[in-house]
Amino acid sequence: MPDRCVSKQTLQRLPAYLSYLRSMGAGRGKHVSATVIAEALGLNDVVVRKDLASVSSKGRPKVGYVRQELIRELEGFLGYDNSQDAVLVGAGKLGQALLAYRGFPQYGLNILAGFDDDPALSGKEIAGKKILPMEKLPDLCHRVGVHIGIITVPGEHAQRVCDQLIESGILAVWNFANAHLQVPEGILVQNENMAVSLALLSNHLKERFSTKGGAG
Amino acid sequence: MPDRCVSKQTLQRLPAYLSYLRSMGAGRGKHVSATVIAEALGLNDVVVRKDLASVSSKGRPKVGYVRQELIRELEGFLGYDNSQDAVLVGAGKLGQALLAYRGFPQYGLNILAGFDDDPALSGKEIAGKKILPMEKLPDLCHRVGVHIGIITVPGEHAQRVCDQLIESGILAVWNFANAHLQVPEGILVQNENMAVSLALLSNHLKERFSTKGGAG
Repeated sequence: MPDRCVSKQTLQRLPAYLSYLRSMGAGRGKHVSATVIAEALGLNDVVVRKDLASVSSKGRPKVGYVRQELIRELEGFLGYDNSQDAVLVGAGKLGQALLAYRGFPQYGLNILAGFDDDPALSGKEIAGKKILPMEKLPDLCHRVGVHIGIITVPGEHAQRVCDQLIESGILAVWNFANAHLQVPEGILVQNENMAVSLALLSNHLKERFSTKGGAG
Repeated sequence: MPDRCVSKQTLQRLPAYLSYLRSMGAGRGKHVSATVIAEALGLNDVVVRKDLASVSSKGRPKVGYVRQELIRELEGFLGYDNSQDAVLVGAGKLGQALLAYRGFPQYGLNILAGFDDDPALSGKEIAGKKILPMEKLPDLCHRVGVHIGIITVPGEHAQRVCDQLIESGILAVWNFANAHLQVPEGILVQNENMAVSLALLSNHLKERFSTKGGAG
């Protein structure tokens, strides 16, 4: 029985393995080895071997893993086979883009609905997902047992929304807002700050050009 | 003259200040202080004061900053006032969602076009942005002087695409793919891995429920 508790580093690499395995054509044979995966992804094969061993005990020397089996084990380990319901708060541009994004189900995420304080948005549908007023949030979350909350409101509202989500039973927050959220122990905040990413990219270019002495 | 070279930590907080300042109504007065910003965002006000001083030298004791002035200084510092052109490679679900996302211009990002190897996508338009075949990438990048490349291809193609972007003159890569990219010195890779985020969220829930002894 493999150890089901893995390091954050391993956990961060597993989705890449899964994505690669899913993408391999049937013509590549039934088996796949850590070496093949390591080569394809530019990783050290000792690392890949160790990562896979923590997820599956079915690897065999010289043969490797049965690909479909390893896919299922990775999916199970990552929770992709057991779809998690989520709610999204803030149905502005980013919120609507996420509501409309059709790629989440393959990662086991199912956004049930969007919530927004703006009465103009209430009742609207984005890609078949309803936008509801905030006062309906606690009821839906408690009734369905939703544990993931996605925050796409402006930064200055994010803490208030986060508090509301936690009161509604949310245990894991995916935060796209420009804000440092404070949460009680046992609640996870995963930050996905595109504004920060863009600031880092832009700053890198600025530094590159200032050392080169011109923007060309 | 403030020091224009700031820490990554400061750089990561600046977008939140800007977002908050932009959101403040005109009714809140002409001035704003570090204390007010710190309180709104749940940060330590010594930290905010120091961050702002690295961007603007115009803060005055007891009065603070002229809000509009500080907004312009932050925009300038973050490069939001000087739009950067970008290309996106991989016009699948995520790529199309990013092409359609209307929030980037306020962060100084302008996606010129999407690129994809799939002939079925070639010539298609997403929110007014063309999807072009990969062979047109180098020409467009060199001609327009594009320095930001966004990667939204499956992980196993990401390194190849990254190499092509760098050959085309890209200096900063915004990587949404499930892959560890290897780049020459002087090239920045900013990773935005939603699959990893979702794996971390899902793993957190699994741990929560296993310690509680059940998924309810």
